Amino acid sequence: MKRKHLLLKVSAVLTVSSTLVTAAPFDRSVKTKENFEASIPRPEQDKAVAEKLAALEAKTGKKPNILWIIVDDMGYGDPGCYGGGGAIGAATPHIDSLAREGLKLTSCYSQHTCTPTRSAILTGRIPFRTGLTRPILAGDKLTKNPWADEKSLAALLSDAGYYTLLTGKWHIGEAEGMRPHDVGFDEYYGYYPAQKEITQGKDARRYPDLVNNEELHEAFEGIKPNDHLIHGFKGGKTEELSQVKTTDDMGRADKALVDFTISKIKEAAKGEKPFFIEHCFMKVHCDNFPNPDLGNLSAARYAYKEAVAEVDLHTGEIMKALSDAGVLENTFVFFTSDNGPQMDGWPDAGYTPFRGAKGTTFEGGVRVPGIAYWKGIITPGRESDDLFDLMDLFGTAMNLAGVSNDELPDDKFYDFIDQTSFLLADDGQSAREAVYFWWGSQLTACRMREYKAHVKVILPQAPHMYIDLSTIQDVGLAPWLFNLYIDPKEEMTVGHRRNAWLASVAGKLKAHGATFKKYPPKNIGL
Amino acid sequence: MKRKHLLLKVSAVLTVSSTLVTAAPFDRSVKTKENFEASIPRPEQDKAVAEKLAALEAKTGKKPNILWIIVDDMGYGDPGCYGGGGAIGAATPHIDSLAREGLKLTSCYSQHTCTPTRSAILTGRIPFRTGLTRPILAGDKLTKNPWADEKSLAALLSDAGYYTLLTGKWHIGEAEGMRPHDVGFDEYYGYYPAQKEITQGKDARRYPDLVNNEELHEAFEGIKPNDHLIHGFKGGKTEELSQVKTTDDMGRADKALVDFTISKIKEAAKGEKPFFIEHCFMKVHCDNFPNPDLGNLSAARYAYKEAVAEVDLHTGEIMKALSDAGVLENTFVFFTSDNGPQMDGWPDAGYTPFRGAKGTTFEGGVRVPGIAYWKGIITPGRESDDLFDLMDLFGTAMNLAGVSNDELPDDKFYDFIDQTSFLLADDGQSAREAVYFWWGSQLTACRMREYKAHVKVILPQAPHMYIDLSTIQDVGLAPWLFNLYIDPKEEMTVGHRRNAWLASVAGKLKAHGATFKKYPPKNIGL
Repeated sequence: MKRKHLLLKVSAVLTVSSTLVTAAPFDRSVKTKENFEASIPRPEQDKAVAEKLAALEAKTGKKPNILWIIVDDMGYGDPGCYGGGGAIGAATPHIDSLAREGLKLTSCYSQHTCTPTRSAILTGRIPFRTGLTRPILAGDKLTKNPWADEKSLAALLSDAGYYTLLTGKWHIGEAEGMRPHDVGFDEYYGYYPAQKEITQGKDARRYPDLVNNEELHEAFEGIKPNDHLIHGFKGGKTEELSQVKTTDDMGRADKALVDFTISKIKEAAKGEKPFFIEHCFMKVHCDNFPNPDLGNLSAARYAYKEAVAEVDLHTGEIMKALSDAGVLENTFVFFTSDNGPQMDGWPDAGYTPFRGAKGTTFEGGVRVPGIAYWKGIITPGRESDDLFDLMDLFGTAMNLAGVSNDELPDDKFYDFIDQTSFLLADDGQSAREAVYFWWGSQLTACRMREYKAHVKVILPQAPHMYIDLSTIQDVGLAPWLFNLYIDPKEEMTVGHRRNAWLASVAGKLKAHGATFKKYPPKNIGL
Repeated sequence: MKRKHLLLKVSAVLTVSSTLVTAAPFDRSVKTKENFEASIPRPEQDKAVAEKLAALEAKTGKKPNILWIIVDDMGYGDPGCYGGGGAIGAATPHIDSLAREGLKLTSCYSQHTCTPTRSAILTGRIPFRTGLTRPILAGDKLTKNPWADEKSLAALLSDAGYYTLLTGKWHIGEAEGMRPHDVGFDEYYGYYPAQKEITQGKDARRYPDLVNNEELHEAFEGIKPNDHLIHGFKGGKTEELSQVKTTDDMGRADKALVDFTISKIKEAAKGEKPFFIEHCFMKVHCDNFPNPDLGNLSAARYAYKEAVAEVDLHTGEIMKALSDAGVLENTFVFFTSDNGPQMDGWPDAGYTPFRGAKGTTFEGGVRVPGIAYWKGIITPGRESDDLFDLMDLFGTAMNLAGVSNDELPDDKFYDFIDQTSFLLADDGQSAREAVYFWWGSQLTACRMREYKAHVKVILPQAPHMYIDLSTIQDVGLAPWLFNLYIDPKEEMTVGHRRNAWLASVAGKLKAHGATFKKYPPKNIGL
């Protein structure tokens, strides 16, 4: 896509906005830095949490560990604590227990698909800024390495004295210079692509036209993503370990990844460095294959449900490893999914109670489970509907690690917000006033408090077809404004009588759009 | 509706079924009595629970108290413990606490509207059998009192030595002979109709065409349902207390009702008799009016949300009253709603994550919150997706009160199942193999385990219009068969490849339909 085309789209948004508003009357946020997203000041809770953290550091003698557990394509409604679990055939006792003993977020947002979310949480920036708006697929020729001029969170934490590890799925580039151990992680142990990209050449039941056609299969082998388990080290050393040869191999992958993470938790707990581990499950992204070693795990027995139950089981194992290693009270844990359920592969698909699914910016695509857990720091049983964008994990990790914002360049715009005090204070409130939703290079929607306004919508043209058979459409006369409290399914708009809300959301959109003029998006040739 | 017409509809179901099946291969249930619904034998858990109850009775010297808390039109998704709560603008800490400390049912079913459910739980019979298939509205002339030959649960328990009270909404007839204190309750304190029936003649904002038109208003006054608070006593004594004159009066109603229930709990706890109290909230049925004495209770601030929060508050007060009266360990508490959310009055409407709403027999209309709580008897933190029909409250109450099935006549069919051991045993499993769904005189669907087959569907013809603008339609070539684990929203049917499931469900439908031939439904002229 040409730069000119990109900027035209942003301008279009600005024009729409400027016809609607001159101000954002309900906006509570303030700018702290020109190139940072504005945030709501929360000085008291910031202070209380800073004191709590300082006391802990004085006790442990180091910064806290950070552990992210990221499931692939798990729907908001899949875990029991979000309304699913046993009610939909796959109980999730370990995830539920994390929520019960921690903070359950009910308005936690991802990007609309996998690569954008994964890049956003490591760069603190909206994917359109970095160029990482979709997976880099077989056949894509990039004109630029999007990571070359980005400072990833892994790099920042590594520089700050952390041991940094990414286990599992990566999906943000497998060429040299774009691998986890090239962009800041000290170590990487996992698979570059998503499950279906690995198994489609080996799964004759689902893809007989590919697997059973010698000519096509040979051509595919030449362009397929790497299907080996990779062990990489900062500096470039990269080992190709076992290859996924069968769907059973794929089914076993997550167990091996979890065992690796657990071994590294044990090791790191004994070391002097704090650790930052991003554990990325391969499951529950289609195509799912049950782990043949684990037996039946779910009441529903379908592959997707077995995958949910397996992720739950392993989440429990990781938490037990933290406990066994004695670091439960010095580790910030965050459990989430990278986007809503991918419904196109149904029944190998998850569940969201909301409208839409992965690939759209309706709630079904972007509202995800988000559980923060920290024994002794986060009061058990907390729940909050305050806004949280997964990019905020970036700013929160920086705060926990004591990395100053000055480490970030002034010539790039940062969209994260430091939510440390929201997550850790007893009655913490969010510092985020708005969440912006993008579909590639197109700004589609914005949420403020319980209101969400869409300027573009992605509509499926057949049941469950949100990716493979959908269209993106401009909304009509006015933005579609939904009140998510009285209409969580986004069915009835209420905009025409709520001008102050429209003005507020449009004001935020306008300010947001302006940052793309001042800080132009990166074009990487995707 | 004529008898011939009624039976034709039942016959149609039988014909459909008999073309499909000769047996129900997955059916585990067995008949215990010719005129009773078949149930799944659970001898071990029955025995364990019987021993637990006997030990309690030996200690307290009497049968346990029974308290039902029934909310009007609360959606499955409204309470926090079912995925709503703070996430949709009205936190429900007291209901959530009941679930956390008790048994949360995730497949608990009501009838599709209010009167059917309320009559079914007190008669143990499907509404089409008793004739109570819909509210008796102003202008209806019944040819027969449906209660005349029914033995209500209240009558059975009253005869067995219980003090029986119904507080709040009734909605199953306000003529003499059909009032709560005519059909078995020792005492009644509440309003006969639903909120909107009481307030429409007093609510100039919503109904200006009625309230501000003198002629129509006068005519309405002549046919309107009773808008007084009624205090009735077995034997017929009936006092008309205060009249609802304003919408504020209506807003205050639930507080007064709860205060009454609480006073009676205190009184009954000191007496020798065990009590059976059915507390029926007026809220959250549209039209909702905030209680002006309570101030703002919800984050969303809409009337519906205030109503949810008020119901939650009062639920907490009732539980506190049980605790204060020292009867928490001798009282079986069940919290539920009489049907799914009524969406036609949106935004004065609830939330279900499922398809459909009140008025349909899709999950949105009939799957409701169901929480069983009994301190010391029900293990805290239980959850079950096993099937429970609210009619099962009838059989469970009979068991708890020690009333024999022989008290019920042989010439009537009973649809309830005794679920005492499902609800009270530590790992209790349901004794119910199938739930049948009716829409008045029409059998529409059946659920077995996670499968649900529809033979008729109620489809809205505009957003949210499930009652006022829907049609009932026969399904096409085959029943719509949904697997509710992989498709909780009932979007994609899977029947054509699952003959054994179709055969099982159709077999159950056939046997169910046959009971209406042997035990003909009652025609009351509705």
